[in-house]
Amino acid sequence: MNILAIESSAKAASVALCRDEFLVAESYQNSGLTHSRTLMPMCEALLSNCGVSLHDVDLIAVANGPGSFTGLRIGIATAKGLAWPEEKPCVGVSTLEAMAWNLCGMEGVACCAMDARRQQVYNALFRLTETGPERLTEDRAISLEALFRETREENLLAVGDGAQLCCEYARKNGRTLRLAPPNLRFQHAYGVARAALEQVRRGETGTGAELKANYLRLSQAERERQERLRSGT
Amino acid sequence: MNILAIESSAKAASVALCRDEFLVAESYQNSGLTHSRTLMPMCEALLSNCGVSLHDVDLIAVANGPGSFTGLRIGIATAKGLAWPEEKPCVGVSTLEAMAWNLCGMEGVACCAMDARRQQVYNALFRLTETGPERLTEDRAISLEALFRETREENLLAVGDGAQLCCEYARKNGRTLRLAPPNLRFQHAYGVARAALEQVRRGETGTGAELKANYLRLSQAERERQERLRSGT
Repeated sequence: MNILAIESSAKAASVALCRDEFLVAESYQNSGLTHSRTLMPMCEALLSNCGVSLHDVDLIAVANGPGSFTGLRIGIATAKGLAWPEEKPCVGVSTLEAMAWNLCGMEGVACCAMDARRQQVYNALFRLTETGPERLTEDRAISLEALFRETREENLLAVGDGAQLCCEYARKNGRTLRLAPPNLRFQHAYGVARAALEQVRRGETGTGAELKANYLRLSQAERERQERLRSGT
Repeated sequence: MNILAIESSAKAASVALCRDEFLVAESYQNSGLTHSRTLMPMCEALLSNCGVSLHDVDLIAVANGPGSFTGLRIGIATAKGLAWPEEKPCVGVSTLEAMAWNLCGMEGVACCAMDARRQQVYNALFRLTETGPERLTEDRAISLEALFRETREENLLAVGDGAQLCCEYARKNGRTLRLAPPNLRFQHAYGVARAALEQVRRGETGTGAELKANYLRLSQAERERQERLRSGT
């Protein structure tokens, strides 16, 4: 099965083409440019340089959250657009679970962490095993204080744009946490393809129309609107 | 320092742009297409999609062997060509050492192995440490039999297109060897950039003209010629 996977949930963007577990091609970019400018050209260059057309793709996978609201929307809109002409099956995967797949082969517990501002991270923990990551918590928005209060694991490996935040908090509080190496520090679309393959094997595919973002919490605009409504102003 | 790194020593080809240790962008492809068709478009798409011109690149790094004779020549010719207009400094790095850099963050000893045919591998061993790979052997062409006879390490992690060969040989001979995970099984240009950065820090840079391949052994044509000369036919 040819899987085209898209990752744009944070500052880095990437696209991967996999044949089941096998990585055929990947393009990754963490240049600071907006995904609306970089993602489509990456998809196009990757497929054309591999001599593969969209017609040859059997499944479109996308990281559907948590993450940057704008980033997720760009990724999901791209997936919907690519799926539309031939009504390709689609799978939305947890950004955090996809991050853990990229670390398989390492030891310990992946502490997948994205900066959610206000001393919070979007986080989930996964034990890294030979056959894949084993989920230990749900995806959640959690304060650094609560994360370290409830986590007793010793061999934590932090990945994502919240990894550095976690490390600094840990150091100040007498805990230790390893940082994932620089080539795997941020999201890569390979993990999205790999997590999607598991969902396909469980029969969990859908259509492009069904793809939606899982923000985990309300946007700032929505929070402020609800506060205004509550306070009657 | 902006490093543009090129890897085409085996079947996969990749290009990476790094700012010192930081991975700005990487394109990887293991589609079976020839590097002479895929490598230059990958370089071009990577730089242009990052909004970076060749002028902004401070160093060109390339895996200079061991590896496929044709693959190495394509990579080195590409590096020479890119370096020429502005006489950029260049660094050639060991393919095997670059492979070990990609595995940093994992545990054990990297058994970097490329299929050299005739039950041999191009191989070197590196202990994976937090600060980088620590070289345990020279780069060499070695038979599988000799490799496992002289290697007493227990926690071996095999990477490269000879990894599967090593695993099969190990299993048949009552030894164990882990395979690197699918997303890191083959060469990636990030490791080339990372190994090159160490050489820069030691002051070991050169010019494009000085780049040359390190084949480790003679090509089949040269071997046959020497045999003919020796036998007087």
